[in-house]
Amino acid sequence: MKKVTIVEVGPRDGFQSVSCMQIPTEEKIAIIDRLAEAGVQHMEITSFVSPKAIPQMSDAAAVAEYALKKYPDRDYFALVPNLRGAANAYALGLRKVCYVVSLSTSHNKANINRTHEQSLAAFREIRETYPDLQLDVDLATTFGCPFEGKYLDPQQPVEFLRPYWEAGMRSVTLCDTIGIADPAQVRRVLCAVKEAYPELAVQVHFHDTRGLGMVNTLTALEIGVDGVQTALGGLGGCPFAPGASGNLSTEDTVWMLNEMGYDTGIRFAPLLAAAKAQKEAVPGNYSGHHICVEKETPCQF
Amino acid sequence: MKKVTIVEVGPRDGFQSVSCMQIPTEEKIAIIDRLAEAGVQHMEITSFVSPKAIPQMSDAAAVAEYALKKYPDRDYFALVPNLRGAANAYALGLRKVCYVVSLSTSHNKANINRTHEQSLAAFREIRETYPDLQLDVDLATTFGCPFEGKYLDPQQPVEFLRPYWEAGMRSVTLCDTIGIADPAQVRRVLCAVKEAYPELAVQVHFHDTRGLGMVNTLTALEIGVDGVQTALGGLGGCPFAPGASGNLSTEDTVWMLNEMGYDTGIRFAPLLAAAKAQKEAVPGNYSGHHICVEKETPCQF
Repeated sequence: MKKVTIVEVGPRDGFQSVSCMQIPTEEKIAIIDRLAEAGVQHMEITSFVSPKAIPQMSDAAAVAEYALKKYPDRDYFALVPNLRGAANAYALGLRKVCYVVSLSTSHNKANINRTHEQSLAAFREIRETYPDLQLDVDLATTFGCPFEGKYLDPQQPVEFLRPYWEAGMRSVTLCDTIGIADPAQVRRVLCAVKEAYPELAVQVHFHDTRGLGMVNTLTALEIGVDGVQTALGGLGGCPFAPGASGNLSTEDTVWMLNEMGYDTGIRFAPLLAAAKAQKEAVPGNYSGHHICVEKETPCQF
Repeated sequence: MKKVTIVEVGPRDGFQSVSCMQIPTEEKIAIIDRLAEAGVQHMEITSFVSPKAIPQMSDAAAVAEYALKKYPDRDYFALVPNLRGAANAYALGLRKVCYVVSLSTSHNKANINRTHEQSLAAFREIRETYPDLQLDVDLATTFGCPFEGKYLDPQQPVEFLRPYWEAGMRSVTLCDTIGIADPAQVRRVLCAVKEAYPELAVQVHFHDTRGLGMVNTLTALEIGVDGVQTALGGLGGCPFAPGASGNLSTEDTVWMLNEMGYDTGIRFAPLLAAAKAQKEAVPGNYSGHHICVEKETPCQF
């Protein structure tokens, strides 16, 4: 059985999308526990951002403290947008974080209010300040941007990543922020990035906006990636695009891979139970399919 | 560009799932026109079933007459469950129909109230009565059944199809009625069927119940099939399983394939417009993604 690495990002990317309520910290912790019990080894547990910018993440320290203490041997990490976030994460004992930058100039400006030069400078600053911190890069809008459209040249992300590689990046997640990638493009981009940086760990993060999250994820796995990111229940997506489904659901992905004979290390039944419990407790935009399969009944013809 | 055949089944399989209203015949015809204008060459336009069993299909004759007269050169066909349905279709000038039987004994009984022997006898009866009628087989529950679970032996459909092959079946659609197939199973079953019947035309019809409709469809196309069935808007699914999404959407599939460089012969923009118009006019269970993408706006991180 071929091992595959599923990286759960629901506690960061999923929760962050929830704007109608402040999810209680105990609820977040309960979901992290359920995920851990189902066998999830890799998880983005929170993000250290300004509580003004994203109030939902204002309990990052409490969540991280709990998770690090209870699961010291698991691959748990957090998102940081800047040196301050990295400092907060580091002080709590986290030794792995990811840092986000958009391939798109306009999206980078809209999302984190920085130029590309400013983003690179901040990456270097974190890198130099915390040399023992694993600092991954989330490359948002790798496949296309809401302002600039689809990116057709696979050398564009390759060249963009070069100064990050030179500054010490050893792991990247290629993110399809607006769910615009297709499997042929995924193949082109992955092959180009892997060829240019054979020593770089590469993960992927697809959204299901256009219904291609799963097919892009399997395509990436078959080409060969070091991990695929998904979110419990498929919670996520853009709060500014009503109806557009967001993250690919972890339980749908795990079900498929387990059925295909891959070794995900995750048990489906408790994972689905976790997704259903989360959907009960946390209202939001869920794109998962298994959580909707209530009962098998025959359909006429 | 590699040509692929998209078979639109919305006017039969999609409309059939709508129980809250009788869709006006003019509305059905308008949607068929929109599909035709977008370039759809292959379409299941209606079904000749008992109006008592499925009142939604009671205007089958009117729909078929219109479509056959207006589009005499396209590959339009209808579903028939029995000799009477075949007779009605034949009398109107249709020369291609498909006949449904379930691989599952219990589903066949629940769905069309027949034993496997009765289903085979009815197929032979139609075959012998109308020798110049192209009589395709829809093999429901090919990959699993709501009562009996997932089918793991790819020789099961192979052996089931043998008497149909001997009775003159030259085209089959392998239907994942409950959306339980995974890509590895699709590969096993397709390879077994194609090896056993190299002269048989094979199509596939996947449901998106567990979120794998697209990945199974692309897997089948890459292995090599003669057509893939989809429904406009993803309308469909089982009216007895609330929340479970149904058919794979035509516009999502066409978008992906066009982006990948396949030649579908279908233009995406008018197809999406058709899906949106249908969703406005016909309330139902839509699983399509593009019809929900309202506006591209950037998401934070």
